[in-house]
Amino acid sequence: MRSPEEAAGSETVGEDDDWEQGNQSDTSCNRIVLLADPWKPCRRSRATVKAWLLKLRCCLGTVCGMEWYGFVALGISMAILSFLMDLIVAKLLRAHQRLYMKLEGNSLLQFFCWTLYPACLCAVASSFSDNICPFSTGSGIPEVRTMLAGIEMPHYLSLTNMFTKFLGLICTLAAGSTVFLGKVGPFVHLSTMVGAYLSNLCTLIQPNKKENAAGEMLVVAAAVGVASCFGAPISGVLFSVEVMCSHFALKHYCPCFFSATCGGLMFRLFSVWSGDGETPQALFKTNFPSALPFYPLEILLFAFLGLLCGAVSCCYLLCHRWILRFIKTNPIFIRMLTTEKGLYSGMVALFLASLTFPPSAGQYMASKLTMKQLLTSLLDSRQWSSRSHNASVQLGPEPLLEWSSPGSPVLSLAVFLLMKMWMLLLACTLPLPAGYFMPVFVYGAALGRLFGEGVAYVASTGLTSGQQWASVNPGGYALAGAAAFSGAVTHTLSPALLALELTGQFSHAAPILLATLLANALARSGHRPSFYDALSISKRLPHLPSLVKACPRLPSTPVGQVLGGKSVQLQKAAGRAEVQHAVNTSSDTQIPVVDSHDSQVILGFVLRSELLMFLRRCTAETLEKHLDEVCCIYPTSVLLSPHNTVQEAHGILSLVGVQTLFVADKGRLVGIITWPEMKRILEDLAKEI
Amino acid sequence: MRSPEEAAGSETVGEDDDWEQGNQSDTSCNRIVLLADPWKPCRRSRATVKAWLLKLRCCLGTVCGMEWYGFVALGISMAILSFLMDLIVAKLLRAHQRLYMKLEGNSLLQFFCWTLYPACLCAVASSFSDNICPFSTGSGIPEVRTMLAGIEMPHYLSLTNMFTKFLGLICTLAAGSTVFLGKVGPFVHLSTMVGAYLSNLCTLIQPNKKENAAGEMLVVAAAVGVASCFGAPISGVLFSVEVMCSHFALKHYCPCFFSATCGGLMFRLFSVWSGDGETPQALFKTNFPSALPFYPLEILLFAFLGLLCGAVSCCYLLCHRWILRFIKTNPIFIRMLTTEKGLYSGMVALFLASLTFPPSAGQYMASKLTMKQLLTSLLDSRQWSSRSHNASVQLGPEPLLEWSSPGSPVLSLAVFLLMKMWMLLLACTLPLPAGYFMPVFVYGAALGRLFGEGVAYVASTGLTSGQQWASVNPGGYALAGAAAFSGAVTHTLSPALLALELTGQFSHAAPILLATLLANALARSGHRPSFYDALSISKRLPHLPSLVKACPRLPSTPVGQVLGGKSVQLQKAAGRAEVQHAVNTSSDTQIPVVDSHDSQVILGFVLRSELLMFLRRCTAETLEKHLDEVCCIYPTSVLLSPHNTVQEAHGILSLVGVQTLFVADKGRLVGIITWPEMKRILEDLAKEI
Repeated sequence: MRSPEEAAGSETVGEDDDWEQGNQSDTSCNRIVLLADPWKPCRRSRATVKAWLLKLRCCLGTVCGMEWYGFVALGISMAILSFLMDLIVAKLLRAHQRLYMKLEGNSLLQFFCWTLYPACLCAVASSFSDNICPFSTGSGIPEVRTMLAGIEMPHYLSLTNMFTKFLGLICTLAAGSTVFLGKVGPFVHLSTMVGAYLSNLCTLIQPNKKENAAGEMLVVAAAVGVASCFGAPISGVLFSVEVMCSHFALKHYCPCFFSATCGGLMFRLFSVWSGDGETPQALFKTNFPSALPFYPLEILLFAFLGLLCGAVSCCYLLCHRWILRFIKTNPIFIRMLTTEKGLYSGMVALFLASLTFPPSAGQYMASKLTMKQLLTSLLDSRQWSSRSHNASVQLGPEPLLEWSSPGSPVLSLAVFLLMKMWMLLLACTLPLPAGYFMPVFVYGAALGRLFGEGVAYVASTGLTSGQQWASVNPGGYALAGAAAFSGAVTHTLSPALLALELTGQFSHAAPILLATLLANALARSGHRPSFYDALSISKRLPHLPSLVKACPRLPSTPVGQVLGGKSVQLQKAAGRAEVQHAVNTSSDTQIPVVDSHDSQVILGFVLRSELLMFLRRCTAETLEKHLDEVCCIYPTSVLLSPHNTVQEAHGILSLVGVQTLFVADKGRLVGIITWPEMKRILEDLAKEI
Repeated sequence: MRSPEEAAGSETVGEDDDWEQGNQSDTSCNRIVLLADPWKPCRRSRATVKAWLLKLRCCLGTVCGMEWYGFVALGISMAILSFLMDLIVAKLLRAHQRLYMKLEGNSLLQFFCWTLYPACLCAVASSFSDNICPFSTGSGIPEVRTMLAGIEMPHYLSLTNMFTKFLGLICTLAAGSTVFLGKVGPFVHLSTMVGAYLSNLCTLIQPNKKENAAGEMLVVAAAVGVASCFGAPISGVLFSVEVMCSHFALKHYCPCFFSATCGGLMFRLFSVWSGDGETPQALFKTNFPSALPFYPLEILLFAFLGLLCGAVSCCYLLCHRWILRFIKTNPIFIRMLTTEKGLYSGMVALFLASLTFPPSAGQYMASKLTMKQLLTSLLDSRQWSSRSHNASVQLGPEPLLEWSSPGSPVLSLAVFLLMKMWMLLLACTLPLPAGYFMPVFVYGAALGRLFGEGVAYVASTGLTSGQQWASVNPGGYALAGAAAFSGAVTHTLSPALLALELTGQFSHAAPILLATLLANALARSGHRPSFYDALSISKRLPHLPSLVKACPRLPSTPVGQVLGGKSVQLQKAAGRAEVQHAVNTSSDTQIPVVDSHDSQVILGFVLRSELLMFLRRCTAETLEKHLDEVCCIYPTSVLLSPHNTVQEAHGILSLVGVQTLFVADKGRLVGIITWPEMKRILEDLAKEI
């Protein structure tokens, strides 16, 4: 059964014949061919370069397949992008901070500086991405998930989109903790774009490995996106496993690990080379005590924290679904979000920034801290409440001062949690490139910190038996809360490992895992959609698992009911006219052949390339021949019945790895299912929700 | 398309009708039924217990599905087994050590004590497992992989096997580092046995969830086996992903994590409760310096170590394949291993033990240390060579003394590496329950340590620029070497994470991953079989990926060539006699229906249960009816062509989740493929190698 695929592959090469020749014949031969062509400029130097390139390709090809160089290139380029972005964003944030400090004394100017800077950045990001590539807004993870499920969405992988998303994301991140948006989601999307580009490059160099490369690169890119964003390769791979539709192919496992390790390691090395630390370290290195990280009984408290995070995540997801519905039904929002995206973003950012203005409400929620500082301060292992009690003890580093500026830091934490919940939901409606994972992670850390401070307070005041629990570490609770809440919101478990990799803190592995599992269990109960599912449903993406969550009945529709119009088919004894008609009307690579148009018994399929050859031969020989005399009729590998559900058809299409499925009822052809057809079917189903 | 499966499910219930009734009607009604039966003893108390159990089931069922309790039970029971085994083995090892110490002064008696103790234990383990359950010998991972690929092997999941394997493994482990065998493989096998038992229990309680439960429990059990063996849940899950045939189903992801976390956490809690440490900690907690774990340039050395480990692993695997072939072809070995397993094991153990006798060659390879002490000493972060130089510095703890007893510890390390290579290969031929992962892990640690000591020596003597590299940590190299070598031997990446989880040391994550990846790349090049592949091929297990490694041509055989004899089929208008004949000759649950025996056009299938009902009705009504008038003919979901390869058929069978595949050529039925049929085909192919 390999032959038809190989034959189909050979059809699509064509343009790369030059490269192919080099593979078969000597490179010098190729050089002569080039020299003979009088129409190309700088022929000699081009030929030399080409010969060298071909030699290089031969050398590289002896070590391993070209795709592995692609994986290395993907890892390294994403690490460079990530490092560059962090650098630029840090500079922009510092500029804002300095300007704000310079205006000390003049409250009005300070207010304008505080509010207009993020507002302008958001407005710019929004109008920029809207005007250049409207597909670049949002997180990108729902779209990546859809593409990983097999649906092609070329708009989302263009270079324009990459450019827009990168610049837009810099603006969003530079708006700082006021707007409170993150980097992960867009980075995964950026990674898939770079991956798709590199995969095209690899296919250009090695044209005989066409079909698998693009799909594999997408899976790998999802892992690299997370890995290079945080320098966390293992959680990148786990994320890539989780983001798949229903099955993870093991052949992608090693490439994922390899590329993610390259990305993660390079990202950390860049920060070493830029003078930030002596050696590659965790991004948010903590100083948890390693001798006694937690008491065994605290595991129950961690489990309770997991359940708490699960419950809060349910509220959060409910509000998020409500706000998504609201902005799609409210006429004012609809008009704003279709015509005046920049204005809307600017206004919302202005509103959020005026709320977080430090001299007003901002002082109660540590609004001066950036996202990184927020996380670092929350993961601090020292207890806050005890230090605010006895002021004689030396106060901690700056971040803590921010939290405790108006009074108790625990009070600030509570205000932060109350306010940020709805502020974050509002920020999620902004039409600009932004990630929604990191804010949720920080929110979870704050939730865990509050819980941990409570536990530490109770333990230190001696309500428990004696002084046994003197050294409770609230930072551990913050870490567990971050993993549990972000895991519950996204319905994934990889945040647990991400929390470990971000902090390099393995002592809390067991309680963090437990909390994340329990939070997930609560959030997933009742088949509620996750954060990304809600976005997919709201955007009507043809993503099957989201559809199942939204309406379990829909994907069980029999295939027979949703099949498109009559597919093009040929009968065994088709002549030239019929073949010509079929080639003109259909663009599929495999065209089904039936016994006769009356009986409709399916015999197999012919390849489009062979039909074209058949037509050429008929024209040349001016003979009237039948289809089965000239073309090879390949047997169909898998036949579906019209009673199969859409879900089953989707599963078979993605798992078996064929491009065309034939649907036959008792041996008679009913229709064919290809990926574009499947996309149409799913989009139709999504409209019915 | 759900209906036929559900209908098929209802057929197999039968025996659980009592339980089922309780689900539908009130429990009190059930009680009356039981009371009315005069033949059962203790009716009243039994009825009360049953009513309580039913109430309990109702309560439990409201929280979550019964299978989740099964996952918890699996995790906890494996943790108990693991803890118990460690406890018993530790006591047996200490007994041997004490006896040996008591005999100090009498070398001959000491020699007998040193050699006869492991020899007897191995002989006992071998004859015990051979006599009670011969399927319990070996690692068990090749068999688990085969079962995970969908092939049923009920011998390997019996309770007798579990009992034998558990006791045999205790004997093997108690033989100590002389025999140098581990625990992981058999533990994964034990876990699948416990899992299969629990899954049966769950199905008994919740009979309507039959098909998926067993397969899911096996996948989960593989993760729990590793997790409870080392208290390392995340690497357990990764191991479970890697051990799958070609795809990992995402629906197993959460159960795997959940059960593995339960197992890992409970295992660590047991050691806390037994007084071993104040709180759950990593099994081999290290004291690596966290401020500067390694210099950035050392990453290149780690990469080189990875390549070195890959090269050594290739040698190891080559020798292992050679020895497997040798003991299968050499007539003396064949006779010994068929009739005198106990004697063979005893003799080999005696030989190995006499070589490691401490006053003789044993002093050069730290033979007094147990496997755990070996690993702990190798992972020590302090440099060995420097301390042997200036003896004035306080010598390290006992383990180091063992290594340096006759002279330089580095010399011992080299002798250890040279000797253990072939000793381990010899030990792998022993027919007793034993794991082959941990020895390879320790060997890799020794390899890494030697390399690390070399690096540290070169760095400290100042061959590099100045005193920049004063604090090279050889323990880090040992850890990387362990992960890389064991990963390369088994062709997996999970050992990298296992190394991190075992030591709780995240600072070395990036170099360990890099070394493991490079070692894997070298070991996998040229499609060489892994350690487990070689065992599968040698045992002729019907495991497709191993077959592909052994002979890539074989699994590409078209299905049409290997299909068994004519399958039972019914025509549409079949009468009572034909149906009776079909029911008597076939045991499949789905029987294909064709248009007529002449045309052979496939229409669909009928369920065996409906055929039995048809026969009952015919007998009762004494009417001659046709099949299609009474039974529902379900459409076939997926049709294969005889040109599909065996590999494709296997993939579709395992991925699509159907029990029967129909093979049709141009609409005509050619044969059917079920799992037993697939097992037969693969076994036939394995014989051809």
